[in-house]
Amino acid sequence: MKILVLGGDGYLGWPTALYLSRKGHEVGVVDNFARRQYDLEMGVDSLVPVRHLQQRVKTWREVSGLSIVPFIGDLTNADFTYRTLREFEPEAVVHFAEQRAAPYSMIDREHAVYTQVNNVVGTLNLLYAIAELNPDIHLVKLGTMGEYGTPNIDIEEGFIEIVHRGRTDVLPFPKQPGSFYHLSKVHDSHNIQFACRTWGLRSTDLNQGIVYGQETPETSAHSDLATRYDYDAVFGTVLNRFVVQAVVGHPLTVYGKGGQTRGMLDIRDTQACVELAIENPPAAGEYRVFNQFTESFSVAQLAENVASTLAADVDIEYLDDPRVEKEDHYYRAAHTKLLDLGLVPHLLSSTLILSLARTVEKNLDRVNFDAIRPTVNWRSTSSTLDTSDPLKMARA
Amino acid sequence: MKILVLGGDGYLGWPTALYLSRKGHEVGVVDNFARRQYDLEMGVDSLVPVRHLQQRVKTWREVSGLSIVPFIGDLTNADFTYRTLREFEPEAVVHFAEQRAAPYSMIDREHAVYTQVNNVVGTLNLLYAIAELNPDIHLVKLGTMGEYGTPNIDIEEGFIEIVHRGRTDVLPFPKQPGSFYHLSKVHDSHNIQFACRTWGLRSTDLNQGIVYGQETPETSAHSDLATRYDYDAVFGTVLNRFVVQAVVGHPLTVYGKGGQTRGMLDIRDTQACVELAIENPPAAGEYRVFNQFTESFSVAQLAENVASTLAADVDIEYLDDPRVEKEDHYYRAAHTKLLDLGLVPHLLSSTLILSLARTVEKNLDRVNFDAIRPTVNWRSTSSTLDTSDPLKMARA
Repeated sequence: MKILVLGGDGYLGWPTALYLSRKGHEVGVVDNFARRQYDLEMGVDSLVPVRHLQQRVKTWREVSGLSIVPFIGDLTNADFTYRTLREFEPEAVVHFAEQRAAPYSMIDREHAVYTQVNNVVGTLNLLYAIAELNPDIHLVKLGTMGEYGTPNIDIEEGFIEIVHRGRTDVLPFPKQPGSFYHLSKVHDSHNIQFACRTWGLRSTDLNQGIVYGQETPETSAHSDLATRYDYDAVFGTVLNRFVVQAVVGHPLTVYGKGGQTRGMLDIRDTQACVELAIENPPAAGEYRVFNQFTESFSVAQLAENVASTLAADVDIEYLDDPRVEKEDHYYRAAHTKLLDLGLVPHLLSSTLILSLARTVEKNLDRVNFDAIRPTVNWRSTSSTLDTSDPLKMARA
Repeated sequence: MKILVLGGDGYLGWPTALYLSRKGHEVGVVDNFARRQYDLEMGVDSLVPVRHLQQRVKTWREVSGLSIVPFIGDLTNADFTYRTLREFEPEAVVHFAEQRAAPYSMIDREHAVYTQVNNVVGTLNLLYAIAELNPDIHLVKLGTMGEYGTPNIDIEEGFIEIVHRGRTDVLPFPKQPGSFYHLSKVHDSHNIQFACRTWGLRSTDLNQGIVYGQETPETSAHSDLATRYDYDAVFGTVLNRFVVQAVVGHPLTVYGKGGQTRGMLDIRDTQACVELAIENPPAAGEYRVFNQFTESFSVAQLAENVASTLAADVDIEYLDDPRVEKEDHYYRAAHTKLLDLGLVPHLLSSTLILSLARTVEKNLDRVNFDAIRPTVNWRSTSSTLDTSDPLKMARA
C-alpha cells in the first residue's frame, strides 16, 4: 500500500516509516523539521544522535534495499500539502506532524498560539486536500489519551452511550484536556469527525498513551537509523526521563504526589497499532477512535519501578506539580479495539528498562543536566526556556 | 462598571454597547471592521444603512450625552489586544468579535482556516491578556447553541451529569457542531474552560440561539444608530431573511424538510442576557455556560408564521438542504439559568414580524435579489460567493 507518514522525521514517525517500509509498503515521509528547531530553541539535543533525514533514507536503502521518499515542507502551507498528496498518491496518511509537547505549549502566549495554529491548520489543510484529491484516503491521525483528562467515570473509546432523562444517545466522550497542546488535539478530533460526517472521509483517531522505548528491530539495523531519545523536561516522556535520571544519579523528578495515572505503551506497539488501523480501515464517512495504550501506571509507580529495576542509588524527589492536574484520581480507560484487531502488547518489562539504561550509558557524555528540571509552570503565563534557571519547584 | 464590547460595530455588538451605555456603564467598543469587509467580498449590504462607527459614536453622544470609546484593531494582533485592555481597564469584556456565519466558514479551505484561526487566536490572545493584566475581568463570551448539534437527548447548559458503569461525574456536554464556524466556538469553549481552571479566570459562555429583530429602544433614537439587517444567504439569520422574502414576494427558502428546530431569541433579549451575566459574575476560576434563547421553532414553523402574519402571497419553497444536518430530529434544550437570574423574554409576536416588515418596506430599493438563494454547499469543498450563480438547489 502507498502510505505517507507525516512528521516522518520525528521520534515515532521515523521508526513507523521504517516499520511500514519493511512490511512491504511504499512509504513517503513528510517533515518540516520543526522538532529539530525546538531543540535549537531550547539548547538541548536528543540523547541519541539522529542523522539528517536524507542520510537516514540513504542508509535505509543500503541496509534494506527499500526506498522511502522524503517530502520536505510544512502542512500549514496548503500548496505544499496538496502538491505532496498529488505527487505521492497515498492510500493511507499517518499523521504524526504536530507539536506534541504539553509543556512547550504552556511556555507563553506565543507558544500556545503556535501550537494550536500549527496543529489545527495543518490538519484542516490535510482534510481539504484529502476531500478534494481522493476522499478514499484513510487518515490515521495521532491523538492522545490526554484529550479525555481524568473524569470520575470509565473512559470509553471516543464515544459513550448516555442515558439521560429517559432518552439514549451515543455521543462523543466529553473532553477535559490539560494543556493548550492537548486542547489542539481535541480541536482536531472535532474537525476530523465533522469532515468525515460532511464529506464522507474515513479516519481513525488514535488516542495514544505515553510512549516509552527507543529501539525497534528496524532502527537497530544501523546507528544512522536511530530515532530520538528525549529526556528533557519539555519534550522528554516520563519513563525515558526517569531512566536517564537513574543512570546519571539525578533524583527521579516526580511532579506532585505522583498519583497521576496514565495509559502507556511500548514504541513497538505504536507501530503495530498504526499497522492494524491501516489494515482494517473504517468505512467511508466513518470516524472511529482507538485508545492506543497497553497498560496504566501512576507516575510514582514508574519511578519506583525504574529505581528498583536499575538498583540505582537515587532518590525520588517529589516536586510541587508545575502542571494543573489532579495528583490522585480515578482512572480506568477502555482499550479493547486494537486488541480485538489482534494487537499483542509488549508489556513494560525490566528488560526494556535495562535496554534503555544501556542506551543512556552509551551516550552519557551527551546528558545535559540543565535540561532535566521543569522550567514551564502551568500557573504562569510566561515561563522561561532558560534551563540555567529552572523553576525552584521543590522550594516553593 | 467599565465594560469593553468586542465586535462592537456588529449586528449585536453595537446595540449591546448602546444598551449598556444607557444603563450607566462606561463602555468601550473594539472592532476591526471584518464584518464590513465580508460585505465587500460578497457584494452585498445590510438592508438598513449603517453609519461608520465614528459617526455612530458621535450621534450617540449628541442624542444621549453619553460617551462610547472606540478602539480600532484586531484581536489576533496581541499587541493591540494587550494595549486596549491596558488603556481601557475593563471590569467585564463582552466578546462578540468572531466570524459568525456558518456558510461563510464553509465556502472553501481559505474561509474555514480563516474562521478558525481568527476566532481561536483572538480568544487565546484575550485569555492571555486578561490573565496577565487583570485576572478578575469577567469574560462574557458569545458561543452558540449550534455547538451542541442535535443529540437525541435533552441538551443541558454546558455540563451534564453522566452515570456510567456505576460511577457518576458532571462533565462538559458532548459537542457535535455542524460547520467550521460552529467548530471554532467549540474550540473556544474548551480553551476558555481550561484557562478558568488553570489561571483562575472567570467566564460566562453564552450559548446563544438564532437572534431576530433589528430595532432596540436605543437604536431607534436616531437613524445613525441603526444596526445591521442581514438577509443574504450567508450572513442573514432565518427569520430576518424570511421577512424580506415575504415582503418582496420571493418564495420563502426552507432548506430540506424544514424540521430543523433551533432555539431563538429577540435582539432585545440578547442585551438583557448579557447584562444579567455581567451583573451576576461567576466566581474566580469558574467557567459557566448559559443557554441563551427563549423559544424553539422549526424552520418550517417560522416560514408558516411569517407567511400567515404578513398575509403574504408567497410560496414556501423547499430547497435541497445545502447543509449536512438532520432535517427532522428530537430537540429539547434547557434554558433556565438566565430565567432564574430574572430574564423576562420578548416572545416572538406578530408585532415583531410586522415591525420587521415595515423596516423592509422602508428599504425596498436596497434589496439585492441575487443574495437570497444559498450559494454555499456543505458537501462541496469549494463553493462560490458569486451570487449571480447560486446553487440550483431545487433542481438537484
